[in-house]
Amino acid sequence: MTPEEFRAAAHELVDWVADFRLRVPDLPVRAEVAPGQVRRALEGPAPERPEPFASVLADLDRVVVPGITQVQSPGYFAWFPSNASLASVLGDMASSGLGALGITWQSAPALTEVEEVVTEWLRELCGLAPQWRGAIHDTASSACFVAMLVARERATDLGETRGGMQAEPAPLVVYASPQAHSSVAKAVLLAGFGRDNLRLVGVDPITYAMDPAALREAMAADVAAGRRPAAVVASVGTTGTTAVDPVEQIVAIAAEHGAWVHVDAAMAGSAMLLPECRGMFAGVDGADSLSWNPHKWMGTVLDTSLLYVRDVDHLTAVMSTNPSYLRSAVDGDVTQYKDWGIPLGRRFRALKLWFHLRLDGAEAIRARLRRDLENARWLCEQAQAEPGWEVLAPVVLQTVCLRHVPERLRDSSGAVADLDGLDRHTLDWVERVNATGRALVTAALLDGRWMVRVSIGAEATERADVEAFWALARNAAAEVA
Amino acid sequence: MTPEEFRAAAHELVDWVADFRLRVPDLPVRAEVAPGQVRRALEGPAPERPEPFASVLADLDRVVVPGITQVQSPGYFAWFPSNASLASVLGDMASSGLGALGITWQSAPALTEVEEVVTEWLRELCGLAPQWRGAIHDTASSACFVAMLVARERATDLGETRGGMQAEPAPLVVYASPQAHSSVAKAVLLAGFGRDNLRLVGVDPITYAMDPAALREAMAADVAAGRRPAAVVASVGTTGTTAVDPVEQIVAIAAEHGAWVHVDAAMAGSAMLLPECRGMFAGVDGADSLSWNPHKWMGTVLDTSLLYVRDVDHLTAVMSTNPSYLRSAVDGDVTQYKDWGIPLGRRFRALKLWFHLRLDGAEAIRARLRRDLENARWLCEQAQAEPGWEVLAPVVLQTVCLRHVPERLRDSSGAVADLDGLDRHTLDWVERVNATGRALVTAALLDGRWMVRVSIGAEATERADVEAFWALARNAAAEVA
Repeated sequence: MTPEEFRAAAHELVDWVADFRLRVPDLPVRAEVAPGQVRRALEGPAPERPEPFASVLADLDRVVVPGITQVQSPGYFAWFPSNASLASVLGDMASSGLGALGITWQSAPALTEVEEVVTEWLRELCGLAPQWRGAIHDTASSACFVAMLVARERATDLGETRGGMQAEPAPLVVYASPQAHSSVAKAVLLAGFGRDNLRLVGVDPITYAMDPAALREAMAADVAAGRRPAAVVASVGTTGTTAVDPVEQIVAIAAEHGAWVHVDAAMAGSAMLLPECRGMFAGVDGADSLSWNPHKWMGTVLDTSLLYVRDVDHLTAVMSTNPSYLRSAVDGDVTQYKDWGIPLGRRFRALKLWFHLRLDGAEAIRARLRRDLENARWLCEQAQAEPGWEVLAPVVLQTVCLRHVPERLRDSSGAVADLDGLDRHTLDWVERVNATGRALVTAALLDGRWMVRVSIGAEATERADVEAFWALARNAAAEVA
Repeated sequence: MTPEEFRAAAHELVDWVADFRLRVPDLPVRAEVAPGQVRRALEGPAPERPEPFASVLADLDRVVVPGITQVQSPGYFAWFPSNASLASVLGDMASSGLGALGITWQSAPALTEVEEVVTEWLRELCGLAPQWRGAIHDTASSACFVAMLVARERATDLGETRGGMQAEPAPLVVYASPQAHSSVAKAVLLAGFGRDNLRLVGVDPITYAMDPAALREAMAADVAAGRRPAAVVASVGTTGTTAVDPVEQIVAIAAEHGAWVHVDAAMAGSAMLLPECRGMFAGVDGADSLSWNPHKWMGTVLDTSLLYVRDVDHLTAVMSTNPSYLRSAVDGDVTQYKDWGIPLGRRFRALKLWFHLRLDGAEAIRARLRRDLENARWLCEQAQAEPGWEVLAPVVLQTVCLRHVPERLRDSSGAVADLDGLDRHTLDWVERVNATGRALVTAALLDGRWMVRVSIGAEATERADVEAFWALARNAAAEVA
């Protein structure tokens, strides 16, 4: 395709995207397609000859749009926010259009140095200490995995350069909360620690935050049994209830054993942009690594996850390679992001953050986050004031955990008499809400029972949208009760 | 930013990208900036208030474009091709604009099923057996790492679910060629095997392909010493010389020990699109995993790396998680790509391949690959016919490995008398070529001495550009000689 053919098609596509964004509020939030429906609509032999652009664009409307859950919708309250702010989309378009190759500093100096600029901007905006240095990864899953690898190699004094994990005499143990994201256990298993050496330590029954006393005890028990504490993952803003593990105390306890502390703030990290929220990150500057995702609440389009570390030398000692074909004369004077993570080739993802911050500005982003916090508080208050509704965890951020208990499931003392019936009721009303296409929320287990997470924070979600959800939820719960 | 503000800015950006692509041939191929120059031109406090789009666009021209090496230039012969075909750029723009979230099938069914369609199209186009199933990863580094993790878990019978690598009684060994890409050693180390358990087995001195007899001997020696062969990485198209390890023989030898075979064809995989090139992949259908990068020679914009496996059940057993907040009613009936790799959240990368294949068509892509193969053969013939020039490895694909030996460095028998002098001469002439800004090639070590890789295959590179490079190289070598 020539640049002029591209120009014509891309102008059409831009209008298509703008029009699509304008009609997102009118689309069903949840994709209503059956398994295999999209595939059957598109499969066939691979295209041998060029098709007209109009055919491809028509298939976007015919098949793709109905086939995606509209996470940019004002009625999207599921999982966590996944905002693709249009300012950041422009940055992503520039990145694709430039077609740069990030394998070494030399292959694209600006790809490296814009990333240094934006990760430094975000460090400052988040009030983090100057010793942190950041890089962009695809997801917090990968960032946590890198942290576990680096933690492992600190505990083994770079055992990868010798006999590897299999040569370790004593088991190395990692600690996390049972409320930690599923990617934490995945990272621990993939890094070779083994599930037997993952300790899910106790949490506070009200806040669902890791209990530091339980962490201390678990570490002592492991040491007594000849095992070595290697790392702790502290979750700030867990996926279930946005619980906040006490980072300051975890850092102090981990220090007694020389264990690495990784702070997983995938969702909640955006709250560091608000000075009034930084209390929940107290002690973070004593941790070893920290990851959070601008592609969630803050809204830089996927995939934009940040991993900050304090000891870059150790990180690069674990990750670096130096083949002859990648060397250049300036290697000692520049940052080589290939040695900060798993992939060698990197896209110019820094442009997404650069465009987003420059075109929207930090003030507007903070104002939007504060709007969402207020909306969550409002919903929390409504639910607490409404008979039959319960808020199941402290609303410390923008996620409200709800349950509705119909009278018929209570015994004479008011306690829930039929827990399985309550689970069915919960799954029934959430499905009824989601089936309307006007809102989408996620059911999740808490203490073994289903509840509903209302995760507020789509860029488009205003108070009226939260009010509309709340009316929908009450109606749905009443109808199925 | 509103959709209408986006529309206005995005139209400007589209023209900017089209104009940029038109002027790429006139830009210096190598970025000519000093370390820190880009950073200093851009750093400062984080933007608090929105800036006009024109300022950001101006900085793209002022700082970013001069700060990237132009891998889309017709004079780009460095590293490997990294084509960002404009048809695929359109697909990437659609992906960013849609703002879809790929965490489960339910979050974006089309994101999953378009990926099934395009990976199936490419399986067919490459002539691979029907049992292969593919997924898109960011890079071949990550794909190789996943392969090493999966290989490890097959050798340990899912030891990750028990005591992990540290509980393994016998060391597990991985085999590769010393010509394998640096990401192979990185994957082996990160997967916990340890450098002591990475065997770089001998290669043929002419073809630089792995010597199967050496592999068999190395495995036997390890078994005799109480170690267990766990995996072999076969490189088809090594980075140095595009050497081709004999996959069929490697598969047979690995089978004797139940070792996993991963085929790393990051660059050369595109050649599977050409039936006449499939001989170099003979036996590939007996391997366990295969990765190749459409984002290299074939030209789907970064990041588009494919990992095919034959045993999806084992892959997902190693990689899967199943937290309550990600479950849905259809989980058993759909593909969950989150369980095929490391990241949970995935972009809609399949659109890049879908647009690329539909808008360019396979025929045109094959024609371009054949053009590049012919250009490489032409350059090889020129160099072989030119006194003082040597072609150092078989030109099996599109990369030509050159060395120029000036008369003054030869002794009376015609042999090279001053190898260090030859290294200096090679590095001198390659720097002279690269400093012109009209072409870029990569120096690399081969058998401990510097040579020059001329990797043909930028989408824009025609015969005239290869001729221009060849004239430049001869002049440069003559001038420094």
